[in-house]
Amino acid sequence: MSQASIIAIGNEILTGHTVNTNAAYLAGKLLSIGVSVVSDHTVGDDINRIVQTIGLAAGEADFVLITGGLGPTEDDLTRQALAKYLDAELRLDSGLLKKIEEMFESRRIPMPANNKLQAYLPSGTSAITNNIGTAAGISAKRQGKSIFVMPGVPYEMKQMFEEFILPQIEKQAGKNGGMLVIRKLNCFGAGESKIAEMLSDIADRKRNPQINYTVNYGVVTIHITARADTLKEAAKLADADAELISKRLGSLVFSTGGQTLAEVVGRLLTAGKKTLAIAESCTGGLLGSMITDIPGASRYFTHGWITYSNNAKITELGVPAELIEKYGAVSEEVASAMANQAKKRAVTNYAIAITGIAGPDGGTAQKPAGLVFIGIAGPAGVETKRFVFTGNRTAIRISASTTALNALRLKLQID
Amino acid sequence: MSQASIIAIGNEILTGHTVNTNAAYLAGKLLSIGVSVVSDHTVGDDINRIVQTIGLAAGEADFVLITGGLGPTEDDLTRQALAKYLDAELRLDSGLLKKIEEMFESRRIPMPANNKLQAYLPSGTSAITNNIGTAAGISAKRQGKSIFVMPGVPYEMKQMFEEFILPQIEKQAGKNGGMLVIRKLNCFGAGESKIAEMLSDIADRKRNPQINYTVNYGVVTIHITARADTLKEAAKLADADAELISKRLGSLVFSTGGQTLAEVVGRLLTAGKKTLAIAESCTGGLLGSMITDIPGASRYFTHGWITYSNNAKITELGVPAELIEKYGAVSEEVASAMANQAKKRAVTNYAIAITGIAGPDGGTAQKPAGLVFIGIAGPAGVETKRFVFTGNRTAIRISASTTALNALRLKLQID
Repeated sequence: MSQASIIAIGNEILTGHTVNTNAAYLAGKLLSIGVSVVSDHTVGDDINRIVQTIGLAAGEADFVLITGGLGPTEDDLTRQALAKYLDAELRLDSGLLKKIEEMFESRRIPMPANNKLQAYLPSGTSAITNNIGTAAGISAKRQGKSIFVMPGVPYEMKQMFEEFILPQIEKQAGKNGGMLVIRKLNCFGAGESKIAEMLSDIADRKRNPQINYTVNYGVVTIHITARADTLKEAAKLADADAELISKRLGSLVFSTGGQTLAEVVGRLLTAGKKTLAIAESCTGGLLGSMITDIPGASRYFTHGWITYSNNAKITELGVPAELIEKYGAVSEEVASAMANQAKKRAVTNYAIAITGIAGPDGGTAQKPAGLVFIGIAGPAGVETKRFVFTGNRTAIRISASTTALNALRLKLQID
Repeated sequence: MSQASIIAIGNEILTGHTVNTNAAYLAGKLLSIGVSVVSDHTVGDDINRIVQTIGLAAGEADFVLITGGLGPTEDDLTRQALAKYLDAELRLDSGLLKKIEEMFESRRIPMPANNKLQAYLPSGTSAITNNIGTAAGISAKRQGKSIFVMPGVPYEMKQMFEEFILPQIEKQAGKNGGMLVIRKLNCFGAGESKIAEMLSDIADRKRNPQINYTVNYGVVTIHITARADTLKEAAKLADADAELISKRLGSLVFSTGGQTLAEVVGRLLTAGKKTLAIAESCTGGLLGSMITDIPGASRYFTHGWITYSNNAKITELGVPAELIEKYGAVSEEVASAMANQAKKRAVTNYAIAITGIAGPDGGTAQKPAGLVFIGIAGPAGVETKRFVFTGNRTAIRISASTTALNALRLKLQID
């Protein structure tokens, strides 16, 4: 199995101001093609330390992946450090300079002189295209080891890694054998320990495949990691476990290909040619944002109301004022009315309504922060449930939105 | 200034299944007592690699902080590796064993045989109390360098670090003097390189304070790191730079205390007793979600419309159908109408409207993915601007939302 080492560069990571999520992302992607990460390192903006760390990483791995320090300012030292490590000079790459100039032109911004620095590369290395920003990546080789440098900004790094670097590593690493296949099952509706209990017979650490869990705001992801000599054998092992677990957990599992709840709901709506409207109060647009984050959402999603004030609920959705007066805006009655009215006004097949108290303020003994009513209106009428979510404002808002999506998913799977 | 190096141990971090938040936490805490982190490393459950990394870390820092690998199972190798590094034998610490036995007794669980392993320490080292779990920490010294080993579980690590280790490091490091203060300035409206150009005279890496930049979807954060003998002196230096930079960058700086654009807009609206409504198309609720993520947003935010379909724009907001027919839904005219109508319907002081093409599909040569019109309606009428954002769907939607918030901020600062 080929090995990789990851280096993150930047004082801001060492000072604790930025959590380095790049390393976990890269490790996951590398594992999926059978490359294991043996170490990762973070160094500040210090040229000698960077050179030393590149040497260490190249000593213990076949692939060295470096992120950060490619910006146009004086604290960006990665290209200089790489040149020093390679014992090469920095040279202006005129093709690269042209690309950077064109990027500024297309944005109609004059190019600052500093950005010219980003067109320099250590001789003997090549540039990796950055489709989003001005910092090109760098691809280098030394003593049989491959070194790839990427920007530290996560979305620039990811696009570059997936489009250009991952395929190259896959090609080079493929020959080393020992393949690994990971399947992810996303579940909603039971906690990690409950699910682990249901799968305790396949929990042994020495078993192949191995079962791991991660949790993210109520979504429990089961990672099935299978190892075998060939990709095909590993896939067979992983798929057998995926099937076993899916059968046992039933409707708790909402996706086996890594899809989010919003994606699954979108697919179900598209397949059934159904449409959706939403009415949000405490989530304030978050549910809509999750739904419309999926490309092509306009096929099924048409209308949303963020009725944050009581008045908005009355004038925009037509919720009876007396209902709010009698039961309060955070009540089963108002949630039901919001869902019914949204469906009626938008003329859709389904509507979701959320009303609650996101906190930290605004709660009472009877109606604490975290209390949320979720209504789902469908062809057969409206169904509204009461929840009390825990955690801070962000956690309560995310839990409310994902729980609402899951409720619609379950309804769509039956309808 | 004293220096520290951090080592995280565990395969689960290297496989990307767990994001290492311990390092950022430790770095922040250490900085607050004037100890700077010069490197951090992550290694898998491999005894030789762990020994090698401890050696590297001790070579570059005064304090080595190790987390993880103290558990009772076969993949926990940190105590063995530390013993090897120190050239010491592992010895049973009977006091420690008693504590572990008592912990199981108090939980009324029989102690598994494995847990006895956690009572072994390299000779010459001492145990650090763990008030929460069975894995005691280890404190060691070699050649004047201090090594501290803690459990990897964040809440056990934090409790042990804050109660026992941090005070000890503070005492030892205190003699070396050197305190550190960091100020963050958030900017919007110019790129990192443009801002760096405007501050090139204070960019020198050897200057005190030091200036660093990070970028997140158009928000450029300037980190001012000042060092001095006392906290007071360091704060004075950092504040002087913050004032200098704020003056020079003018309205590009939107916060000096780490506040987000949505927080700043919320404060301005609250201070002026103004109200806000929004109408979103391509952002689909994301702008609303940002606004309502701020506690107390109900003081100024009342109404939002997610008019994703053309029909929703017509029936809910009252945008004239002819306008959409003539100019298209993604146009200056429709953005202006959406903003005006939202303000009128909601009876607020301000309204933001966003209409655009988030991509990846739906674009044309005349109207490419990334094209977004943002309208701001206020007391003096509506102002609408055209933008072409780059990046994927997520990046375009975030850029559109933050740019809209920034446009409102600038208007509120003048009005």
